[in-house]
This record gives sequence, structure tokens and C-alpha cells, in this order.
Amino acid sequence: MVTQQELAPWRSLLARSLHRNRSKPQSRYFQLATVQSNGKPANRTVVFRGFVETSNHLKIVTDRRSEKIEQIQQQPWGEICWYFSKSREQFRLGGELILIGDRDRDSEFYTERQNTWENLSDSARLQFVWPHPKQERSPDSGAFEPPAPESDTPVENFCLLLLNPHQVDYLTLRGDPQNRHIYWQEEDRTWRDREVNP
Amino acid sequence: MVTQQELAPWRSLLARSLHRNRSKPQSRYFQLATVQSNGKPANRTVVFRGFVETSNHLKIVTDRRSEKIEQIQQQPWGEICWYFSKSREQFRLGGELILIGDRDRDSEFYTERQNTWENLSDSARLQFVWPHPKQERSPDSGAFEPPAPESDTPVENFCLLLLNPHQVDYLTLRGDPQNRHIYWQEEDRTWRDREVNP
Repeated sequence: MVTQQELAPWRSLLARSLHRNRSKPQSRYFQLATVQSNGKPANRTVVFRGFVETSNHLKIVTDRRSEKIEQIQQQPWGEICWYFSKSREQFRLGGELILIGDRDRDSEFYTERQNTWENLSDSARLQFVWPHPKQERSPDSGAFEPPAPESDTPVENFCLLLLNPHQVDYLTLRGDPQNRHIYWQEEDRTWRDREVNP
Repeated sequence: MVTQQELAPWRSLLARSLHRNRSKPQSRYFQLATVQSNGKPANRTVVFRGFVETSNHLKIVTDRRSEKIEQIQQQPWGEICWYFSKSREQFRLGGELILIGDRDRDSEFYTERQNTWENLSDSARLQFVWPHPKQERSPDSGAFEPPAPESDTPVENFCLLLLNPHQVDYLTLRGDPQNRHIYWQEEDRTWRDREVNP
């Protein structure tokens, strides 16, 4: 069972941004930064898959064969940068990254992994049985047309990835001057905030 | 004088993406990931200010008082994630970050800093004389209406930031399956590339 969390104060701002930008499919994409084992940053676009219910954990899906898995195992902290182009707002969400794979049956989020798999589109599910990402391009085009995996049984390569934000930096470019607000979680998990210069 | 570089093979792809997406102002924004001194990643949206002529260095501007300055001094490597929503293409550019501030008169890019300042809009220049970023919000709204700085004299807070890409990961979401191409620079600075699985 998933621990219940109080909704963080920045959640209503983010809900409003998602609503304002709902006409643009790309408003559900954001950039996730992680750190490589050589100490250099990595950065890529991922799709927002909603929140884990009754918590502030953002859901992402990823392939077990992806390079970010090893990065997260070594440095389980990430920063999301989420820019909404229509409303001209930016959220930077820094926090703990939690991976839930096939073997993590003891995780409180194991059921969430199952639910997330079931809610993927057929084409999104198919990518988890494509040839190994970033290896030399497979000359066999049939390799990209495998039998569709079962919609109720997550494949082994499928991982749920959660980001549990500990700090959020919210900037609105509209307004003169711009507005910027910082939210952070204290040791006791209560949220505090402060208005700062942009 | 700036060292002449051969145009990298990914430059024409990027030029095409910029052209295809020119109707969207946000296509000139990208996300820059750096690493903090505590080993955690940081990620923010910045504006593309063009290339340094006769090179592959991407130009960004930043405030000397920004937190990324210290990050870059400790880990001078960054990764840009640049997603073009109209054409559905992503470029991930990893490389060396080079800061050119007021005191870097010996830098081969010092003149470029001057040119970049001159080409900024009045409102962009003004932000470099606003109150200190991320400090408690100044209650004095007049602090955000300082006298305009001279358009031909960069202020002390103004830094030019360059990213010199050493590797580029190019992904097109259109196409079934998607297409992905990796470019990397060898020790002798020649570029190599390889088609890989998405």
C-alpha cells in the first residue's frame, strides 16, 4: 500500500499549467537530468504519465536497457525541467528517483507499475520489445515489428520510474518583472516556500 | 581570433530543424543540464543565441550571480536537450562549457561576448542589473526598473556561456520505427557517426 502524502502546495500551480496548456500534446513532455558515472550530466525528454495517486510522485516509464538505469542506481537524484510554452511558465523539480522493475515485488509501487503498463498505448508498449536501444541499428526491419506484448502483463524490460520532488522552483515569464517562487520540503516533510527574485 | 572549426555533420540537421520550427519562438529554447557541487544534477531552460561564427560552439548568456556559474567552474561539462515539438525531433548535445566574463580579456571569445551583448534586446540587457537572482524578493519594485545599461558596454554581471559539443544524439520520433543517430568527436577532432536503435 502506498503511503499517503499531503498534496504539496505547488501541485495546484502545476495542475493549472497542465490545464492551460492542454491543447498542446508536448506540454506533457519534460526534460529529466541525471548524472553519469563519470560525473557528467545527462539530459533527455520523457513523457509525464501522471502522479501516483495520493502522493506527489511523478510517473515516467523507461526501458531497463536504457543508460539512465545505471545512472540512477549510482545517483538516485534527478531534476526535471518542465517548460510550458503557451503560458510561459517553468517548473524545476528536484528529487529522489525511484525505479520499479520486474523484480521489485516488495516495492510499495509494484501495483502502480502494473497499472501504468496497462494504461500505455499499444505502440508505447511495443517499444519495450524492440531491439536494444542505442546499439548498432538492427538491419532487420522485422525486429521492430515483434508480436504485441500482452496488455495485462508488463514485460521484463518495462520499468516504472518515479520522481519524488523535494524542491520546486517555479518561474513565470509573464509579468514585469517575472515572478519566481521556491518550494522546499523540510526534514519533517512539511513544505515551505519563499518568493525570490527572478 | 577564434579558431576555425570544420562544421560538424549534425549542423545541417540542426539548421533544418530550426528552419522547420521557425514559426515557434520556443524552438529557440532548450534545457541545459549541469552538475551541482553536491553531485546532484541541475536543469533549466535557456535561450539559444546562435553559434560562434566558424565554429560549432552554441551561445547562451547567463548572469555571473547565477548558481550555474559555480557548477560550471567545478564541472565544466553540460548536456543540452533540445526538443522540437513541430517536427518531433530531439538533439542531445554533450560537451565542454566555456564561461567568458568581464575579466576574461585573454579569452579568444572576449569579442564574442561584446557582440552578443550588443545583439541582446533592451529588456534582456536590463535583467543583468536587476536584484540578485534567487535572493528573497526585493520589496522595492523600483529595483526592477533600473536605468538601462549601455548597449555597447556589457555590464559586469554579463557572461557569455558556450557549449562546445563533443557528442550529439539525434532522434526523430516521426517514422516507424523512430530513427536515431549518434555523432561523436574523436581525439583528433574529426567527427564520426553511427545509426543506432531508437
